[in-house]
Amino acid sequence: MSGSGFAYTNLFARSLPAPALRFAGYPKYNFIGGHNDPTLIPVDGLIAAATAALRKEGPKLAMYTAAQGAQGYLGLREFVKSKARRRGIDCSTDDILITAGSGQGIDLVNAVLLEPGDTVILEEFSYQGAINKLKRDGQKIVAAPLDEDGIKVDALGEILGRLKRDGTTPKYIYTIPTVQNPTGSIMPLARRRQLIAVAQEYGVPIFEDECYADLIWGGREVPPALYSLDPQHVVHIGSFSKTLAPALRLGYAIADWDFMSRMIACRSDSGCGALEQMVVAEYFSQHFGEHVDELSETLKGKLDTMVEALEREFGTAVEPWIPKGGIFLWMKLPDQVDIMKLVQPAAAAGIALNPGPEWSVEAAPARSRLRLCFALASKEEIRAGVAEFARVCYEQTGIPVRSANVQRARAGE
Amino acid sequence: MSGSGFAYTNLFARSLPAPALRFAGYPKYNFIGGHNDPTLIPVDGLIAAATAALRKEGPKLAMYTAAQGAQGYLGLREFVKSKARRRGIDCSTDDILITAGSGQGIDLVNAVLLEPGDTVILEEFSYQGAINKLKRDGQKIVAAPLDEDGIKVDALGEILGRLKRDGTTPKYIYTIPTVQNPTGSIMPLARRRQLIAVAQEYGVPIFEDECYADLIWGGREVPPALYSLDPQHVVHIGSFSKTLAPALRLGYAIADWDFMSRMIACRSDSGCGALEQMVVAEYFSQHFGEHVDELSETLKGKLDTMVEALEREFGTAVEPWIPKGGIFLWMKLPDQVDIMKLVQPAAAAGIALNPGPEWSVEAAPARSRLRLCFALASKEEIRAGVAEFARVCYEQTGIPVRSANVQRARAGE
Repeated sequence: MSGSGFAYTNLFARSLPAPALRFAGYPKYNFIGGHNDPTLIPVDGLIAAATAALRKEGPKLAMYTAAQGAQGYLGLREFVKSKARRRGIDCSTDDILITAGSGQGIDLVNAVLLEPGDTVILEEFSYQGAINKLKRDGQKIVAAPLDEDGIKVDALGEILGRLKRDGTTPKYIYTIPTVQNPTGSIMPLARRRQLIAVAQEYGVPIFEDECYADLIWGGREVPPALYSLDPQHVVHIGSFSKTLAPALRLGYAIADWDFMSRMIACRSDSGCGALEQMVVAEYFSQHFGEHVDELSETLKGKLDTMVEALEREFGTAVEPWIPKGGIFLWMKLPDQVDIMKLVQPAAAAGIALNPGPEWSVEAAPARSRLRLCFALASKEEIRAGVAEFARVCYEQTGIPVRSANVQRARAGE
Repeated sequence: MSGSGFAYTNLFARSLPAPALRFAGYPKYNFIGGHNDPTLIPVDGLIAAATAALRKEGPKLAMYTAAQGAQGYLGLREFVKSKARRRGIDCSTDDILITAGSGQGIDLVNAVLLEPGDTVILEEFSYQGAINKLKRDGQKIVAAPLDEDGIKVDALGEILGRLKRDGTTPKYIYTIPTVQNPTGSIMPLARRRQLIAVAQEYGVPIFEDECYADLIWGGREVPPALYSLDPQHVVHIGSFSKTLAPALRLGYAIADWDFMSRMIACRSDSGCGALEQMVVAEYFSQHFGEHVDELSETLKGKLDTMVEALEREFGTAVEPWIPKGGIFLWMKLPDQVDIMKLVQPAAAAGIALNPGPEWSVEAAPARSRLRLCFALASKEEIRAGVAEFARVCYEQTGIPVRSANVQRARAGE
């Protein structure tokens, strides 16, 4: 054969995304990506669950969807149904769709509702994956302002009123009310009711993402899911990526059958992997409470370590939004810091971070903000990584001037 | 809450597919769907593999893609690499992408190459899933005639010449050369070389689907994959659905990096489930050969049972294309039989079959044809189901007149 490489690159579709780079492994200080704590993967429990599930149901793997239909393995849907009750949701297994992570849930909700050019409302700071899918597919995103309790409902009402005067009905309000991504806030019950009322007044569905709602610091009272308050006007998604393992690709959507039957029809795959569904159903139907309690306690310890390290290294130069659960910390550096300019120097020092503009509908309000995930790194790595980030930040911006109460000097000074 | 049902069906996207129906379980005689033999799921082997894999790699599940990047679990890519050598393919693990069944492989090849309105060439009878995706996405499909050795290359050359004169370069020739779906043929080596030559003459890539190539009746010599003959001009996909279990959602694509890097970039999920990848890698790296040998032998026995039953029940009224491997039998009934009119009466009798027009680029040439899968049903079910189908067929069409050498009488006569 002469030459090398695929011979027909001339036939590629126009407007393809840029080619992927070869996987280069993970950075030393990996504060991105929604990873979890490797020491808390319940290896023995999963082995026992896999053994029991295969013994009981193994032969069913010979049939597509293990002969249970496109909505997913019934045992896992039954577990989701019982877990949903913790969030106040009373639904049937026919209202539940097992998805490839919450990402497929977002894809399917979008498929049912959206066309290019449609308008949707997102929280001003929001999940990068949701933002990117909408931008890729040509929807207009309007930002709703946040405070420490989630969406500011008065401001949302003004936005909806303005859009209505312009003749626009947004296709949904996408909200992460329980451990907001990236701010970590939990919306109080009264505001949940206000949000539902204003959305209903303007005829706009609520798209509720509860990816992190099972990971709350111990003993905290959590208001019920929006879906539980008004299932006719809300579509709900969740995930097992955060409560168990992101490398298992499992999440779920809960919706009334009118909506559910459309999501199922929009699905172009042949369901999620049935072995993983069986294993998670088997493991979590016995161990969910104890597992998420232990995981949450560990995560809270890592959060505390990260906050201490940030305060030690950055002092008053950092303003963290202390999250009420989850795996990440959202924070602001002084206005003169352009976080996008720190991404490459940080990477060169082995640090991966989520720059605020990538987790924000508009780049400008997040110019000096960033998200750091604390679940994957050990406490030692958190301390060392934050110190290293402070060093990089100081070298690039002169901030923070003091770290660990010691005056810094620029490299070379 | 007053009323019921999702309140905003008015906001649904236009041109949604029809809503899904609630899953109603499987028919008594299930001759569709690519299912496999439940008695040959290696339950003990999978338990041992899951145990070993979780013991070795379990903590990695805490990281997206088990920290191995978007191409999939390296252990499984290494197995695919070694398996590909059986098909003559010499590739690196960087040329391999683990996909959610071969279906995602088709989606990603389409994403890299196709835009609405593009033209592609398919074998006149082909995989329904591939046909449906193209029709949904607005591509024009041109049918290439088949004989018992696969695509007729002379006819293909004429089609390519005609398209060229019209100024059209097809984006690919989709072929299933090794156990064609639905005809079960295997393309001889000489014709493989001719196919590659004519495709290259007209500047058209070959898209090779080898879903069934590992399931060949004992001892048969199989020519190497098209990809092995010309990796610059071919993209290759395969599946573990047929060799192990379709409820595991695992397949693979093999392509040169120029193409591969685009497929990876078009992927919008976060990889395939890593536990299933680990289990399959662990199990198949030890047991692949013995497993597919045993499976193929069992499948051959079921094929023989189905052919005998068809001959007994339909006599000369049926013309089967005896497959050289795989899980299905393609056949023709007399011209006066409109198979689409038999689907509902057969379903009412508990029989599910694949009517030919759904496995054909053009409906007309497949009007009297059908595909019956023989992997899931037991031999007793195959015999009883074929007899029942003959009864339904006779009642609807008067064919076959004789079954098991007994003259039939119409119901009520």
